[in-house]
Amino acid sequence: MTVAVDRRPRRVVLVGFGNVGRELAAILVDPSPYPGLHGLNVQVVAVTTASRGTIAMPEGVDLLAALRDIRTTGAFAAAHRVPSSTLDILASLDYDVMVELSPLSVPNRGEPAISHVRSALERGKHVVTANKGPLAWAYRPLRDLARQRGCAFLHEATVMDGAPVFSLARHCLRGTSILRLEGILNSTTNFVLDSLEKGGTVEDAVRRAQQAGFAEADPSLDLDGWDAAVKVTALANVLMDADLRPETVPRERMTHVDPARVREAPRHGRRVKIVAEAVRDGEQARARVESRELALDHPFAIARGTTSVLRITTDLLGTISLTEESPDLRTTAYGVLADLLALPA
Amino acid sequence: MTVAVDRRPRRVVLVGFGNVGRELAAILVDPSPYPGLHGLNVQVVAVTTASRGTIAMPEGVDLLAALRDIRTTGAFAAAHRVPSSTLDILASLDYDVMVELSPLSVPNRGEPAISHVRSALERGKHVVTANKGPLAWAYRPLRDLARQRGCAFLHEATVMDGAPVFSLARHCLRGTSILRLEGILNSTTNFVLDSLEKGGTVEDAVRRAQQAGFAEADPSLDLDGWDAAVKVTALANVLMDADLRPETVPRERMTHVDPARVREAPRHGRRVKIVAEAVRDGEQARARVESRELALDHPFAIARGTTSVLRITTDLLGTISLTEESPDLRTTAYGVLADLLALPA
Repeated sequence: MTVAVDRRPRRVVLVGFGNVGRELAAILVDPSPYPGLHGLNVQVVAVTTASRGTIAMPEGVDLLAALRDIRTTGAFAAAHRVPSSTLDILASLDYDVMVELSPLSVPNRGEPAISHVRSALERGKHVVTANKGPLAWAYRPLRDLARQRGCAFLHEATVMDGAPVFSLARHCLRGTSILRLEGILNSTTNFVLDSLEKGGTVEDAVRRAQQAGFAEADPSLDLDGWDAAVKVTALANVLMDADLRPETVPRERMTHVDPARVREAPRHGRRVKIVAEAVRDGEQARARVESRELALDHPFAIARGTTSVLRITTDLLGTISLTEESPDLRTTAYGVLADLLALPA
Repeated sequence: MTVAVDRRPRRVVLVGFGNVGRELAAILVDPSPYPGLHGLNVQVVAVTTASRGTIAMPEGVDLLAALRDIRTTGAFAAAHRVPSSTLDILASLDYDVMVELSPLSVPNRGEPAISHVRSALERGKHVVTANKGPLAWAYRPLRDLARQRGCAFLHEATVMDGAPVFSLARHCLRGTSILRLEGILNSTTNFVLDSLEKGGTVEDAVRRAQQAGFAEADPSLDLDGWDAAVKVTALANVLMDADLRPETVPRERMTHVDPARVREAPRHGRRVKIVAEAVRDGEQARARVESRELALDHPFAIARGTTSVLRITTDLLGTISLTEESPDLRTTAYGVLADLLALPA
């Protein structure tokens, strides 16, 4: 099956230029290894960051130079920088799509990403976000604003990296109602549990997860269950029409899970996993993040390391699961790219 | 997320009225348990069968009466029957969609289903098929004919029942190239392997599979690997643009798998599984059906009984898997319904 790639030119503002943004830029600089991207016509007209400066160029920024500057000096070259804020850029520049890649802030309840998304949608620009904040704290008003302005508001890279969680629900489950969502959604805690089972410590596992690049610099976002709570909130709000907030999702913290229990569970044919779950409850949904002891042949028990899995129970189709094996940065960058390729005319 | 259900009236011809057709009819008679089907507007104007008679009614056949007649007498009531052949009906009746549910024939290389599909497409009618034959023996010409006539040619229920294998690839993997497809695709052999592992016999397991309704009356279609070969051919032809035929796919027959090997594998931490695989090879693909000894925590090893799983390796998204847990007839009927809901205007 050949799905034709969208060849319309898309002028894109990247908000944020961390690991995912740089991986996306590298693919855009040279998409030639990927035959499916033939004809891709994405032009990045601005990249805004909080600490590395902001660059903007109506005829397209030089991504190769930008990547090199970040790699060698940690910031964009002074000669190319503009003094504008992200909101200035979003309000004044000529662009088609805002790609929100800034880091999630739980204390700020998804800001400033929510304001970025609102600003772009209010101007009638499409939005692609890898930042979960807008889904967890402001999904309904942003979704309604997008509809009102006739814009796309896509977010595939927010949960399970590039795995097509949201597009699966949108395109592949027509006519069904989703009754339950359960998954292994946080890589760091899943990696830590693996390590504890082998007799390691939380601290050592977190250090290795940070070295491998998938744990946050501040690991409490993962270990305190916030990342999973924000993800399951996003899933429930989008896929179950719920109106949850991460603060109200009960979270069992990794630090409260007894390492001895994790080590000993396999002797009884069980494995301890941290599972995020949302269950439909009338017009609303209930969600939680908790440790569970699962049989060793449970679909979640075999998800080791950074592998993630989402199990979806529906009325008409029964239960299906989507597993993403050992994703890397390219996988997440693909999630953003998939949304860019799915934009309407 | 609410995906609005297509409310356009669709006049449908059902070709075949076996288990799946009757389950579909039961859902159409009373879709009220499924809120996502609200507004569904499907009218069955004819049902053709090889041995139970054919009924046709321009203003819509009475499906409830048809189901009752089949249940009580094994055939449609003589008073409602018409003498027309399926091809007559497809060539002369006023309808919008042909739904092909007749049984697969390997000896006839997918006929008469292929002729049914061609006849409908030539008249500019949409086609939904649960019969794999047209994909395995005539995919390219039928796909090209459908494009030429501006018709849909959908086939979600052909592989993994209702699980969204083809719609996932069509809508959720934009820009990627599929490099490898591997899966547990035949329920009967998977169920037989489970049984052998517990010390049972092939014969007894097949009998129980037949009683449960998922094995063919002639079990050789399953046991000789034909069902899996046809499915992997369909997958390769559609998803890899290959032009394979089931006859050229090497098949390891269930009857050639040593029961002692299946019983003893778990002692070495392994499980014997029959895996169907297609691998991209330049512009073509290679496919095979074979037994493999897999680690007990391999994603295929935990697929027991009728659970099926497809693992898709892509260039940009890495490896994802779609698992369907213990499907039933409703799941397959949903595959057909999902296609009906995905038809273009």
